[in-house]
Amino acid sequence: MHPAEVRGSAQPGPIRIVEVGPRDGLQNESRQVPTDVKVRFVDGLSECGLREIEVSSFVSPKWIPQLADADAVFAAIRRTPGVVYMALVPNLQGLDRAERAGADKVAVFTAASETFSRKNTNATIAETLVRFTPVVSRSRVPVRGYISTAFHCPFEGPIAPRKVLEVARALLDLGCAELSIGDTIGKATPDEVRRLFDLLLSAWPDARLAAHFHDTFGQAVANAVTAEAMGIRTFDSSAGGIGGCPYAPGAPGNVSTQALVQAFPGRTGVDLGRLEAASAIVRPYRTG
Amino acid sequence: MHPAEVRGSAQPGPIRIVEVGPRDGLQNESRQVPTDVKVRFVDGLSECGLREIEVSSFVSPKWIPQLADADAVFAAIRRTPGVVYMALVPNLQGLDRAERAGADKVAVFTAASETFSRKNTNATIAETLVRFTPVVSRSRVPVRGYISTAFHCPFEGPIAPRKVLEVARALLDLGCAELSIGDTIGKATPDEVRRLFDLLLSAWPDARLAAHFHDTFGQAVANAVTAEAMGIRTFDSSAGGIGGCPYAPGAPGNVSTQALVQAFPGRTGVDLGRLEAASAIVRPYRTG
Repeated sequence: MHPAEVRGSAQPGPIRIVEVGPRDGLQNESRQVPTDVKVRFVDGLSECGLREIEVSSFVSPKWIPQLADADAVFAAIRRTPGVVYMALVPNLQGLDRAERAGADKVAVFTAASETFSRKNTNATIAETLVRFTPVVSRSRVPVRGYISTAFHCPFEGPIAPRKVLEVARALLDLGCAELSIGDTIGKATPDEVRRLFDLLLSAWPDARLAAHFHDTFGQAVANAVTAEAMGIRTFDSSAGGIGGCPYAPGAPGNVSTQALVQAFPGRTGVDLGRLEAASAIVRPYRTG
Repeated sequence: MHPAEVRGSAQPGPIRIVEVGPRDGLQNESRQVPTDVKVRFVDGLSECGLREIEVSSFVSPKWIPQLADADAVFAAIRRTPGVVYMALVPNLQGLDRAERAGADKVAVFTAASETFSRKNTNATIAETLVRFTPVVSRSRVPVRGYISTAFHCPFEGPIAPRKVLEVARALLDLGCAELSIGDTIGKATPDEVRRLFDLLLSAWPDARLAAHFHDTFGQAVANAVTAEAMGIRTFDSSAGGIGGCPYAPGAPGNVSTQALVQAFPGRTGVDLGRLEAASAIVRPYRTG
């Protein structure tokens, strides 16, 4: 399918950016960022015009020590009215912590690649879905479902779009309000984006799909522009591109929020000057 | 203008990549690359399926010492039939050297920003055009005209599309066979690409326009995909992104040829494995 033959509404309009720097970004930086710096980072991001911020993860500190202070961060941030503060939760225990912390939205995380799921979460995709069932049903706030390795897997290679469709259907059937379709290793190209979103949008033409691109091979903004032309209006990104790529040390990971704001001028509501100031808060801690 | 409302033929078809690594790339690396390494680099690129390679610049070594061995490089490379070997020439003296060296095509270089032209070449845009007049008229090979800072200037800021149109018209009037429209500092966004190429393509709907994007702010592939959807079929890039950005040390400069090959699968004729092998030849000399 060619860029010109795009589907969907394709009307210019607001683009919603889900800022994932404080969670997905910092999780992939090996240096420990002090809690007060994280709080200043989130507070800075709250003042940029972003409508949604993934603050942290209520996962066991055994797995992700970088985010062990999720409760303390949530307790200390200054909330800007209208901004959604999200947290990743791996299980019911995480959901309890997230709800006590006052998260406005929670997210669960699975994969489209069996091998990636097993290596990353020590569970098959089916097992993650079983684990998420009570999380989604008991959650009092909307639940986002992450589908990682939706295009390529570092272990399995290319992932068939129908596999992503299956996992997406399962997550929506559980009750997820939104899905984030992730190019975890940054290998997706615009053609692959068209192929997958063509399939997904034929199943769910509404606004339940978000796209999560990494810029490891320079394709992220092109992929976002391609998905936008198909009707996708929600994109994940991290301020200043913090996080790097866990599979290619030194390479870019999450597309930078700056790059998306620039690619969709006047449509994200994000102030670039404030975003730069917020990004600068964590820059000294970057390793990736 | 929106991605869906694209103009031009917009038929998938071959994409021509002009590999500028040996000239534009190496010119921006501060380390001196030995002549035999350059020759191996060009020879490696010749085996990738690239149809056009900018080999060097016949400029005074006083200005660009990195490319002082242009004659020696041209004399030593193994030419692959069907590949166009291009050289930059700043003046008639450069044209003479390029013709003696057997360049298949030459290029002249000006800007859309007056300030950039003066700082970069010590001449106004009008003076560069006067200097190019005998070069273009006497050249026995096709002449490409580079228009740098066609979107943003590091000194003047945004450049009006009508200024680019003026310079483009002047270069085509002189007899240039092709123009390369350059985003020298990588600040252009897809919207700006649409605005400028909309204007240029309304004046010249044929295939005389190439796009030269830098990835400094992550927009290069998105810009290329946007321009392609409007009908542009020729893109400049450098193997492995060699060159960096002279205005932002450590930041990317020329979009990598790999990123374009991946963004336009099956359309560039370039073998990614061979391209990686060629890129590796100069990797030890990279500073940017």
